[in-house]
Amino acid sequence: MQHENIILTARKSFVCQLFSSCEIDCLIFFNMNNIRYLSGFTGSDGVLIVSNNRTVLLVDGRYITQAKLEAADTEIFEYKDKIRGIVEAVNELNLKHIGFEAESVVVQMYNLLIRELPDKVFVPVGEELRLLRAYKDEAEITLMRKAAQISSAAVLDLRSEIKFGYSEKELALQLETIARKSGADQLAFETIFASGENSALPHATPTDRKIKRGDFIVVDFGIKYKGYCSDETCTFVFQKLTEEQNNVYQLVQEAQDRAIDIVREGVNAAEVDRCARNVFGKKYEKYFSHGTGHGVGLEVHEAPRLSPVSRDILKAQMVVTVEPGLYFPGRWGIRIEDTVLVKKNSCEKLTKMDKRLTIIE
Amino acid sequence: MQHENIILTARKSFVCQLFSSCEIDCLIFFNMNNIRYLSGFTGSDGVLIVSNNRTVLLVDGRYITQAKLEAADTEIFEYKDKIRGIVEAVNELNLKHIGFEAESVVVQMYNLLIRELPDKVFVPVGEELRLLRAYKDEAEITLMRKAAQISSAAVLDLRSEIKFGYSEKELALQLETIARKSGADQLAFETIFASGENSALPHATPTDRKIKRGDFIVVDFGIKYKGYCSDETCTFVFQKLTEEQNNVYQLVQEAQDRAIDIVREGVNAAEVDRCARNVFGKKYEKYFSHGTGHGVGLEVHEAPRLSPVSRDILKAQMVVTVEPGLYFPGRWGIRIEDTVLVKKNSCEKLTKMDKRLTIIE
Repeated sequence: MQHENIILTARKSFVCQLFSSCEIDCLIFFNMNNIRYLSGFTGSDGVLIVSNNRTVLLVDGRYITQAKLEAADTEIFEYKDKIRGIVEAVNELNLKHIGFEAESVVVQMYNLLIRELPDKVFVPVGEELRLLRAYKDEAEITLMRKAAQISSAAVLDLRSEIKFGYSEKELALQLETIARKSGADQLAFETIFASGENSALPHATPTDRKIKRGDFIVVDFGIKYKGYCSDETCTFVFQKLTEEQNNVYQLVQEAQDRAIDIVREGVNAAEVDRCARNVFGKKYEKYFSHGTGHGVGLEVHEAPRLSPVSRDILKAQMVVTVEPGLYFPGRWGIRIEDTVLVKKNSCEKLTKMDKRLTIIE
Repeated sequence: MQHENIILTARKSFVCQLFSSCEIDCLIFFNMNNIRYLSGFTGSDGVLIVSNNRTVLLVDGRYITQAKLEAADTEIFEYKDKIRGIVEAVNELNLKHIGFEAESVVVQMYNLLIRELPDKVFVPVGEELRLLRAYKDEAEITLMRKAAQISSAAVLDLRSEIKFGYSEKELALQLETIARKSGADQLAFETIFASGENSALPHATPTDRKIKRGDFIVVDFGIKYKGYCSDETCTFVFQKLTEEQNNVYQLVQEAQDRAIDIVREGVNAAEVDRCARNVFGKKYEKYFSHGTGHGVGLEVHEAPRLSPVSRDILKAQMVVTVEPGLYFPGRWGIRIEDTVLVKKNSCEKLTKMDKRLTIIE
């Protein structure tokens, strides 16, 4: 058995372990990242059925050649119409109690399935599947390390290119080009490159605004390498720094340092969030308008969540971000983010940019 | 009333017209492209409720500032927890029969809604909403024209840069960089740049394969400009052309020409598909492994569909692709695609590359 087969078999056994507790005899997957994770197929459309003794990938004609190459150890069925394909596969595999991803199947598809397969029982599986991809195996960690290394190196290179008068859009493009030339396959998400008052928008889109003296520059950047995402945010200051900017930056950095310090096996995700929030205290907490972090993997946002209401518990081999920020609408904002690998007694930063405040001259 | 307000009002009136036939007193939107279309908000998370007399946009703290800027004429509610936010809004607006997007709401969200709002009636709205964004108004057509112009010009520029030994990845990056420098905001989809045997994969990902003499090179490229997508595919041949390659190319071009010739108000989408398929005939049809086209707009794939099973009828102001292709696994493939604006008695190509076979020397 090849190494890749062993990995896929282990992943599928996680799925099969859910069958008895969920009272199902198979799981049908529509989420393409889950399908990739369980079969190796990287196309953008398809359906995967995992039962105890068979795994079947359903694709349309566009993907037959690719599916046979990438999912060599999975049975491939071709369909012309997706629903008809599912009906035929379910009947051929003689399945009766069919679990499906509650977080990925839309109501329309669900209604079609119960209409076309009226004698089957469909069971939404949500909570039990949330952590399907949360524990990264060694092969995944290797890819995530590489993704983070490419993107951190690109941000470091880009930093020395930031000059007065360059626009956010120009610099974002330059950053992405550097990363692509160093091996990034694609972006993990649309780059945030926000300067001056735009830095107060946590999810800003790059604009034609030109960099000015005294700007904070928030660069939230991530790439995909062989499917796996990186995610890192640096906030630089351009040429001039006020005492207030410096004080607030130190506060955000302290929030991130403290939060990262407690990340390890067994810690509640909500506790990491609270740890960052406590550093901000009453005076600043209201300017921290998002959660402290999230899992990263084939998707840039996946389980677990690090937020005040999260019930997740961090476990070794999870990969999560730690990204406190403070945003003052109309003025400026700061966010500092690393992606870390959770270990038994600590965590390891996969992203490599030094987060001490850098004044770009 | 500003021009933008008039447009949004017209779009919302399309929504409100569904209320009586669907027996609902509001529609709740989760699809971010629909939310953008109906409110102007371009963020990546939020919920929009449209009732007869109020339109409310629900966002979390990350997006408050942006929502107020972009959706100035929409009421903005802030939530910490999305479900709690929806419950409060539904109660405040005193809604009872709530329509929702059957194609966008996942089963988990649906189950949460009916659990948290047990005294309300939830109605999935599918077919009636399919064409919500299908008819493009003048403002949208202007943006789509610009998107197509930027991307066609980039492909034209790139074509003269294709040299022996360059890899698919290198050339894809170069193409994207040209487009970004000419005003593209982002990609509409991951670029397909497939050469030689890779061109037989309709949805190939760029690889390190280097361009060789005799290759077909399929370039399927699209960008976003102010939210709107372009979509165009050219197939070039590199240095050497066999008679077979030439004959098959002419056949694909004829299929595209004939299909485009019949596109106009009132034609069945399935008929356009059949028209292309008829050109291929029995001998080649089996190598045409996808539909002939799809609508384009805020999403690169949207209604209507041009496929053998489509029941859509083309109408003026729809924008669709026409993209027949033939793929010979392990050997090579050809696809030719334009994005066209449907008119009363014809259609207009928005994409501008000449589709006659070009031999790159």
